[in-house]
Amino acid sequence: MELDEVTISRAILSEQSRIMLDYFDLDCAIVGGGPSGITCAALLAEEGIKVALIEKKLSIGGGMWGGGMMFPRIVVQEEARRLLDHFGIKYTEYEKGYFVASSVEAVSKTLAAACDAGVEVFNLTTVEDVVVKEDKRVSGLVINWSPVEMAGLHIDPLTLRSKVTIDATGHDSTVAHMVRDKGGDLEIKGEGFMWAEKAESNILKHTKEVFPGLIVTGMAANAVAGENRMGPVFGGMLLSGEKAALLAKEALNLK
Amino acid sequence: MELDEVTISRAILSEQSRIMLDYFDLDCAIVGGGPSGITCAALLAEEGIKVALIEKKLSIGGGMWGGGMMFPRIVVQEEARRLLDHFGIKYTEYEKGYFVASSVEAVSKTLAAACDAGVEVFNLTTVEDVVVKEDKRVSGLVINWSPVEMAGLHIDPLTLRSKVTIDATGHDSTVAHMVRDKGGDLEIKGEGFMWAEKAESNILKHTKEVFPGLIVTGMAANAVAGENRMGPVFGGMLLSGEKAALLAKEALNLK
Amino acid sequence: MELDEVTISRAILSEQSRIMLDYFDLDCAIVGGGPSGITCAALLAEEGIKVALIEKKLSIGGGMWGGGMMFPRIVVQEEARRLLDHFGIKYTEYEKGYFVASSVEAVSKTLAAACDAGVEVFNLTTVEDVVVKEDKRVSGLVINWSPVEMAGLHIDPLTLRSKVTIDATGHDSTVAHMVRDKGGDLEIKGEGFMWAEKAESNILKHTKEVFPGLIVTGMAANAVAGENRMGPVFGGMLLSGEKAALLAKEALNLK
Amino acid sequence: MELDEVTISRAILSEQSRIMLDYFDLDCAIVGGGPSGITCAALLAEEGIKVALIEKKLSIGGGMWGGGMMFPRIVVQEEARRLLDHFGIKYTEYEKGYFVASSVEAVSKTLAAACDAGVEVFNLTTVEDVVVKEDKRVSGLVINWSPVEMAGLHIDPLTLRSKVTIDATGHDSTVAHMVRDKGGDLEIKGEGFMWAEKAESNILKHTKEVFPGLIVTGMAANAVAGENRMGPVFGGMLLSGEKAALLAKEALNLK
Amino acid sequence: MELDEVTISRAILSEQSRIMLDYFDLDCAIVGGGPSGITCAALLAEEGIKVALIEKKLSIGGGMWGGGMMFPRIVVQEEARRLLDHFGIKYTEYEKGYFVASSVEAVSKTLAAACDAGVEVFNLTTVEDVVVKEDKRVSGLVINWSPVEMAGLHIDPLTLRSKVTIDATGHDSTVAHMVRDKGGDLEIKGEGFMWAEKAESNILKHTKEVFPGLIVTGMAANAVAGENRMGPVFGGMLLSGEKAALLAKEALNLK
Amino acid sequence: MELDEVTISRAILSEQSRIMLDYFDLDCAIVGGGPSGITCAALLAEEGIKVALIEKKLSIGGGMWGGGMMFPRIVVQEEARRLLDHFGIKYTEYEKGYFVASSVEAVSKTLAAACDAGVEVFNLTTVEDVVVKEDKRVSGLVINWSPVEMAGLHIDPLTLRSKVTIDATGHDSTVAHMVRDKGGDLEIKGEGFMWAEKAESNILKHTKEVFPGLIVTGMAANAVAGENRMGPVFGGMLLSGEKAALLAKEALNLK
Amino acid sequence: MELDEVTISRAILSEQSRIMLDYFDLDCAIVGGGPSGITCAALLAEEGIKVALIEKKLSIGGGMWGGGMMFPRIVVQEEARRLLDHFGIKYTEYEKGYFVASSVEAVSKTLAAACDAGVEVFNLTTVEDVVVKEDKRVSGLVINWSPVEMAGLHIDPLTLRSKVTIDATGHDSTVAHMVRDKGGDLEIKGEGFMWAEKAESNILKHTKEVFPGLIVTGMAANAVAGENRMGPVFGGMLLSGEKAALLAKEALNLK
Amino acid sequence: MELDEVTISRAILSEQSRIMLDYFDLDCAIVGGGPSGITCAALLAEEGIKVALIEKKLSIGGGMWGGGMMFPRIVVQEEARRLLDHFGIKYTEYEKGYFVASSVEAVSKTLAAACDAGVEVFNLTTVEDVVVKEDKRVSGLVINWSPVEMAGLHIDPLTLRSKVTIDATGHDSTVAHMVRDKGGDLEIKGEGFMWAEKAESNILKHTKEVFPGLIVTGMAANAVAGENRMGPVFGGMLLSGEKAALLAKEALNLK
Repeated sequence: MELDEVTISRAILSEQSRIMLDYFDLDCAIVGGGPSGITCAALLAEEGIKVALIEKKLSIGGGMWGGGMMFPRIVVQEEARRLLDHFGIKYTEYEKGYFVASSVEAVSKTLAAACDAGVEVFNLTTVEDVVVKEDKRVSGLVINWSPVEMAGLHIDPLTLRSKVTIDATGHDSTVAHMVRDKGGDLEIKGEGFMWAEKAESNILKHTKEVFPGLIVTGMAANAVAGENRMGPVFGGMLLSGEKAALLAKEALNLK
Repeated sequence: MELDEVTISRAILSEQSRIMLDYFDLDCAIVGGGPSGITCAALLAEEGIKVALIEKKLSIGGGMWGGGMMFPRIVVQEEARRLLDHFGIKYTEYEKGYFVASSVEAVSKTLAAACDAGVEVFNLTTVEDVVVKEDKRVSGLVINWSPVEMAGLHIDPLTLRSKVTIDATGHDSTVAHMVRDKGGDLEIKGEGFMWAEKAESNILKHTKEVFPGLIVTGMAANAVAGENRMGPVFGGMLLSGEKAALLAKEALNLK
Repeated sequence: MELDEVTISRAILSEQSRIMLDYFDLDCAIVGGGPSGITCAALLAEEGIKVALIEKKLSIGGGMWGGGMMFPRIVVQEEARRLLDHFGIKYTEYEKGYFVASSVEAVSKTLAAACDAGVEVFNLTTVEDVVVKEDKRVSGLVINWSPVEMAGLHIDPLTLRSKVTIDATGHDSTVAHMVRDKGGDLEIKGEGFMWAEKAESNILKHTKEVFPGLIVTGMAANAVAGENRMGPVFGGMLLSGEKAALLAKEALNLK
Repeated sequence: MELDEVTISRAILSEQSRIMLDYFDLDCAIVGGGPSGITCAALLAEEGIKVALIEKKLSIGGGMWGGGMMFPRIVVQEEARRLLDHFGIKYTEYEKGYFVASSVEAVSKTLAAACDAGVEVFNLTTVEDVVVKEDKRVSGLVINWSPVEMAGLHIDPLTLRSKVTIDATGHDSTVAHMVRDKGGDLEIKGEGFMWAEKAESNILKHTKEVFPGLIVTGMAANAVAGENRMGPVFGGMLLSGEKAALLAKEALNLK
Repeated sequence: MELDEVTISRAILSEQSRIMLDYFDLDCAIVGGGPSGITCAALLAEEGIKVALIEKKLSIGGGMWGGGMMFPRIVVQEEARRLLDHFGIKYTEYEKGYFVASSVEAVSKTLAAACDAGVEVFNLTTVEDVVVKEDKRVSGLVINWSPVEMAGLHIDPLTLRSKVTIDATGHDSTVAHMVRDKGGDLEIKGEGFMWAEKAESNILKHTKEVFPGLIVTGMAANAVAGENRMGPVFGGMLLSGEKAALLAKEALNLK
Repeated sequence: MELDEVTISRAILSEQSRIMLDYFDLDCAIVGGGPSGITCAALLAEEGIKVALIEKKLSIGGGMWGGGMMFPRIVVQEEARRLLDHFGIKYTEYEKGYFVASSVEAVSKTLAAACDAGVEVFNLTTVEDVVVKEDKRVSGLVINWSPVEMAGLHIDPLTLRSKVTIDATGHDSTVAHMVRDKGGDLEIKGEGFMWAEKAESNILKHTKEVFPGLIVTGMAANAVAGENRMGPVFGGMLLSGEKAALLAKEALNLK
Repeated sequence: MELDEVTISRAILSEQSRIMLDYFDLDCAIVGGGPSGITCAALLAEEGIKVALIEKKLSIGGGMWGGGMMFPRIVVQEEARRLLDHFGIKYTEYEKGYFVASSVEAVSKTLAAACDAGVEVFNLTTVEDVVVKEDKRVSGLVINWSPVEMAGLHIDPLTLRSKVTIDATGHDSTVAHMVRDKGGDLEIKGEGFMWAEKAESNILKHTKEVFPGLIVTGMAANAVAGENRMGPVFGGMLLSGEKAALLAKEALNLK
Repeated sequence: MELDEVTISRAILSEQSRIMLDYFDLDCAIVGGGPSGITCAALLAEEGIKVALIEKKLSIGGGMWGGGMMFPRIVVQEEARRLLDHFGIKYTEYEKGYFVASSVEAVSKTLAAACDAGVEVFNLTTVEDVVVKEDKRVSGLVINWSPVEMAGLHIDPLTLRSKVTIDATGHDSTVAHMVRDKGGDLEIKGEGFMWAEKAESNILKHTKEVFPGLIVTGMAANAVAGENRMGPVFGGMLLSGEKAALLAKEALNLK
């Protein structure tokens, strides 16, 4: 068989535009491809829910790639060890209860699991705004190509509809900020001092729906709640992603 | 158990410095974390060979994340379908012999396989130079943190020893250029016009040892050989990575 | 009727991806949206030929928008006055034989004519490379989104097939340079001193097929031929676009 | 006839300085060359009113060139279809009531109409300030070359007098901000969440004189009023430009 | 003996990681390598206290290198002359009571003394945040590589524990700002007008513990207190560093 | 009398466009507003010759403003003292034969003299190219606004005709380079080592017509001739400007 | 006589350091080298007062070089014509009472007059802060080299003492802002809308001592007073400089 | 005693200008403040020779501050241990013959020794060119403030005379390049592959006078000779500085 450049080009555009047209209307949009976003996406998709993971960068994984101070290792505590096992991530025990894993492996294994479960990933995609109508809930996202913003161009966005939206954008908590800045009833307290123990114990409490249709997870949850900072310990991140998935599932059943 | 920030910090540094000290002396150093580099690393490590994958960016995956023109899909032809299967990457057939896969899934699955096989990944790591001594072969790499270069600082590098080095840096073919620019007997012809069919059929021929101790793979192989350009079809990339692994294995037995 | 964001989004993507899939295979690709490129595109499409006008910037019109030294007026001499009339561009006579028109009107009228004739415009699109196979002729273009390059990203391009390609990229003569730089038999002499009279009289002679499948027009024609420079007089540009259209038409009949 | 560079230079400067000297005193200054600005300019000039369209960029058309997410298509709804027809813009019906047109064609046709009607376009021109005297109305604009600002130079501006000024600068609503920031009695509420339906229905209501002598149109109208956001649907933009033209005409008769 | 690159690399990493692991828990962390920071570090280490000097730049010495207006001389007044003598810095008397020294010598001699006394210097290290737990005192620092920030990367930090922390960051008073910005009870008044006499006489009064566990010294002390500015007279800086050392020593005995 | 902004604007544009239209055809164009360019312009205009001084920066004076190493003083030797006197520049004698003047005064006095003599100054004006026709001599300049280049815009230039052109652009010798780079028969040897004595004695010899219609003066003369470098001694610069004026006058009589 | 580079260097440094040492203590420091600053400096020095003109740029003249919109002409009204005559600046009458002069000539003639009168100019010098002691008046300036700031370096400044300080920094009114920002009792209202007539008539009223020891002149005077904006009419600027000189003279007699 | 800002300013300028005036004529100019430059300067000054150390950065120490890969440790081998002892730098033995020291301590101790010996350090000083006259030897340096270059300004330099010049600028070998680029008879071969053993053994051989009056030391010596690269082992650097000092001393006796 002769390989043909035009057929290759058509295969790519045809397949991706088919998926994009379909995903302009979805169950759950997860913004931010860090550890809690990927975990949440994977667990939701495993339940057959139509999920898009939207990431502004070209690569998925966020701050997890760099470990701590560029040493590509992360620490996970006992409570979340079962999620390492769930995703097949290897680890060693440094001291009792402190499990060290490769940060690169952690990204690849959680993301592979998300892909296996059927998550569609939209990378290089920026969320510019949210849709809020008379029902006063987040019902969609206004998206654009990230390079449009990187290149300083002014180009109109497109819009997708989502029944539930999850803000997994880290301490920036971008989506929550958009809602707040345009008048949504939502207080953002900002991240507190470093105190890993407290931040890790409270993150599940802060993982919740903070505005109709909008759930926060991971560092975004802590930033909205004014919780302390955690550093390169990732147990809470994974567990928060798991809880966000549960909340999203519940929300979807109600609609 | 109480989570303690200092123990977390020590766990990360202690574990990673142990690995770095060990990996200053290794069997095979693969430079460049794109599809052929990851494939090559995974297949070598599956054989129990001590492999490091060195990538200057924070994330692994290179140009594969973006698919074609930011549409995150890649095309793989029939000959390489078995490697998609090997890594568990899902695909659909667009036209006979043209298989379309998610570019994000392709990255995560190949990388997950590499991690499972025991590859150590050094991301944010730049190769500044190579070691060539009286035996006139590449016997090591001179490395530095990428942010040192990104921040425009002048800081001395460190050096690792590798029995075989693989240049998987794409059309830049960075390692081959270093060898050539410092007087190594190695001609680099540069990439030709776009002609996917020809580029794909010849890439295996060009995947070879181009200087004692230095094997080129993927687009670096084609760039050194003056071969044509391929575009977003990835079969040849995967097969080239596979061949580079074979050649490296042979080279290691000879020493 | 209720306006719906998702339908708007789908309408845009659906319509444009249909056109892109179709235009991956076309009769004539014109690179560069300045005066000779637009003129050429308009005249070819008026003949029912399937033409794409590819421009790396967001807007079409190139250097014509700015007139001379930001004074948005252009001068056209007697020989080309009939093309001003053809496009419905108003003008006044400054001295005998020197017609002054608004540069903004000149852009809008020529572009409107091109659209009326059925030209498809791909703006924000960069040409990265050309397709040249065993028949040693330019038979396609390798394209990418311009913001990918503007943002410094490394993302694979897609490819389109064109029976004839026209380089209308101004003194950069980008396509001709690509052909030359990758070993095509094509000499580029560069633009000479300013000498409007001579440059204007010779431009039609230089508007020709300079490599199989590649016609040069406008300032690109003069730059390849080593002709003198013209300045803000646009008669030769329009006439060169007209001649390039004729040459392309002839070439298309031969295939 | 011999072409002469000096005559060409004199023709351009002489013609443009004549026009600039004349247009330092005009009926209506429209700031911003996007869809509502061009529409407004065209419709006013068709009535014989002396209109200048002032745009800071080199090209006219603003955000319309890029369609939605760089796919160069726009959607227009039923209510505004007659304006597409008025300007001769072709369209197809995607779903009932959703008309899709080429964004490039839309720019060129509206701008060509504006030129035909006698609008003078001042591109590369920045508005730095407004003239407000004892009558507490906007009675002129303080202008400069845009490259002066782009190059970071400090150079004094010149001033033009206009009986009516129209702010068509998009969500930045630049002129309204200048009036507000220097103490003019004018509240700017900022754009709300994305909600195309509501934004489109209310835009005509918001297109009005917001300060003596200053009318807002297009997204500037919605931004001042605190209205919702619309996305790449352009019916309201065109209709708002039409209404601004009507209001300007009324205002001019009163003086 | 044969010199071996791998042994060199291992020697450096092995030695430094041993020190870093040890210094994740220390007596006193001094942030900022200017004159008061170095002085304080040297005097504390002379007492056998475990001290780290943390500096974000590659070189230590801060603003002292440049003297006044790039003329590399500093002035020290009578009261602090004994500290010049203590560090072995040469000087000449310009007018009675005004001693002039080389700014380069002043840096090198104070730093040499600090190294002799056993201070560990962590250069290229940024303090991103502080640790404050239920006891409401600064009990640690959140650190990262400076090039991570310089290169615009998002990488998690590590954390070290310190019994006492000293803010010697100059007028930025970075650590004090972090404490204040995250809600710590600490007012920062900012530096006043230039008035060397007053600033020099009051600096010792302002050198104090401003928040539990946090002592300010040098210009940071004056900036927090709202004191006047001093210019290139360094007596107060050295004396303030000396006083901070005394305070730190007292604080360490209390714990 | 009431001051009116529109009249002010018209006064400025009207006056300057009148001058520009006139000066598109002139006797002598001097490129570069440093000491030799100003001197040459002043002396020529004193003879009633129609001279334009073209400078790319906003201010005139070039490197003279900064004296030596930002100390705003220049040295002039005995031979050129009479030119200091001619322009009314004050000086003191440092050692026998070394006269020191204020660099700021030197700029203002020479420029004031040039203005008095009737030189027209075009600042913020870049020379992009030269006019060379069948008579193979420089017969005009292609000019543009400097901010166009500073802002990275592509805008066509205008052209002026000059009987004689003087390159006073310093070591860049910009005009000479343009002639050489486009094939003019003119060798540029580049500046040699610092050796003030030799450079000063030879500069008059190098001040000459280096291509028909093009005279070089000041550092441009030395750079073309491969002469040594001079540093902040300005006697040769002033004398070279004087000689260039003489040569230009002779050349103008011949035509 | 043999020219010697070392003697040249010593002549420059020796002469300038002698002047700087002397001018660390002066009668009147004028900050900002625009038209009102130069005028004020010239008129004060003509009275034998020891004056320094401090300018952050390399060249003196400020915004006056560029005329209006880069057309290098300025307009002066009848009231200030006598100052044009005083400085020997040529002009033409455009309409009754509107005198047009070359902006370049205006800079050079005023500056030449200032140099003749004995003003010392410190260019490339930034004012970083002011000296205010117990007498609560501005009694000195904290200065640095501008390139230190331009290069982003942190280097200590030096200080000069002045009996009276004049802020001639244009709308930035830099010195007034420093006084206000550090708690001085001084309100800055900011510039109003463009209204040349009113701004010109009131500028003399606003030229006054706004804080003990600090007089404002030119646009700084209007900006502090909240006056309207003027544009490229310079009569008020020159007259304001003249009045500031009068006020400074009075202030100096009181001390 | 009352501290007075003006006296402080005068003390600094007076002292430094005295030194600069003196050092415009010196015995030995050493360019580059890295380890070999400092060592060489210290050893020469210990012999009473008048030495200036010229460094373009604000801080002295060059690449030594960063150790290897930002781990601030250096390795020194047995042969150079006596120089560590000479400067009082502490070290530990990692393996037999590999001594590890703090890179920060190494900088401060060598620099303190240089200051003690009487070296004058000119930091923030760029060498722009060299003086070479009829005797065809390097007899001086053309210097400027580094911030002038960093800020992109064009300001004339000053010149100093030196009997011997030492290029200690690292692999850039800046001074040698200047000599070569302006036609001096001097070949620069560039640095070879990493091979620490060979580079360290040969560096003393390459430390020599490469052009009359110009000695190269440290990495500049190896770069000129085409020697291999060394990495973060500093024995050779210190020994090369020592040898350069010997050669300079010999050269000075010959004159």
